[in-house]
Amino acid sequence: MKELKERIVSDGRALEGGILKVDGFINHQIDSQLMMSIAREFVRRTEGVEYDKIVTIEASGIAPAILVAYLTGKPLVFVKKSVPSTMEGMVASEVFSFTKNRSYTVSASRKFIEGSRLLFIDDFLANGNAAMGVVDIAHKAQAEVVAMGFVIEKGFQCGRERLSSLGIPIESLAIIESLDDCKIVLR
Amino acid sequence: MKELKERIVSDGRALEGGILKVDGFINHQIDSQLMMSIAREFVRRTEGVEYDKIVTIEASGIAPAILVAYLTGKPLVFVKKSVPSTMEGMVASEVFSFTKNRSYTVSASRKFIEGSRLLFIDDFLANGNAAMGVVDIAHKAQAEVVAMGFVIEKGFQCGRERLSSLGIPIESLAIIESLDDCKIVLR
Repeated sequence: MKELKERIVSDGRALEGGILKVDGFINHQIDSQLMMSIAREFVRRTEGVEYDKIVTIEASGIAPAILVAYLTGKPLVFVKKSVPSTMEGMVASEVFSFTKNRSYTVSASRKFIEGSRLLFIDDFLANGNAAMGVVDIAHKAQAEVVAMGFVIEKGFQCGRERLSSLGIPIESLAIIESLDDCKIVLR
Repeated sequence: MKELKERIVSDGRALEGGILKVDGFINHQIDSQLMMSIAREFVRRTEGVEYDKIVTIEASGIAPAILVAYLTGKPLVFVKKSVPSTMEGMVASEVFSFTKNRSYTVSASRKFIEGSRLLFIDDFLANGNAAMGVVDIAHKAQAEVVAMGFVIEKGFQCGRERLSSLGIPIESLAIIESLDDCKIVLR
């Protein structure tokens, strides 16, 4: 997606340790018009995929996901990152975050995803752990993630390889080839 | 807002302790078409208010806020609930949550709000603590919250009174008069 790639190059910043800062337009301050273009591109790329609901993880997945949900007329379910006060009616999964170097629990109400075909939308694909957590939750609720869309993929990490082994189609709108020497190189 | 009020009555649930569950259409599973109607109503009610950016708090404020941002062509800044790894360039405020009975820190990058006129959008107004935290952050960044919009206001709590003392106009799309005896009574 040309508009997004150009914006990453002009306004993104590569920091030490393979970190890409896009907090000026994607995940802290959001360019709402760019985000709608991103949502339209997700819709275009998943034409022909049949799904009932959009699913994402709070917090930075919600903006692209609600716009996709709006465009397609489908509901959005956002998976929570906190441990629910009661596990009654919940499905949960443990996710390890390399960025934060700790595990956290993702959870959702079973009734909102049970038996559904889900399109998973998120801002970043890195090692794929968060996405794997959502696939796990879906399985536990007899639901199925039928496709995944990421705004930005870190192509130098193992996320795509791990998720591909599950046989789920992946669409990334911008793929980062490298952040070596604090330089952004797009594929 | 008639459509929202009817939905609260039909699909919301009042639980013990003044809790209103709207997780089937507002803050866990989201009815994307209703949420766009909500955003349009916020835009309608804030016509004539001049602002530069939309601001909200993660996570459940993001859906209505990004839609308002899209409709108005403005950027959205979402205030974070976690403590940033470094406070460099950040403004922060302590917020006490009665629902969770603990304090948490809200923070934002100074550069994204500095000097801006902000329209604050959130899903719930109860005691107003989260909103007060955002007003505090704005002050610290020489920014100003010029109006506030809430999807649902708990009219039996003190939020409106506290926020009104700041002289900031408040728009709530549905006001709950009472949840006594686990019955939803709208104003």
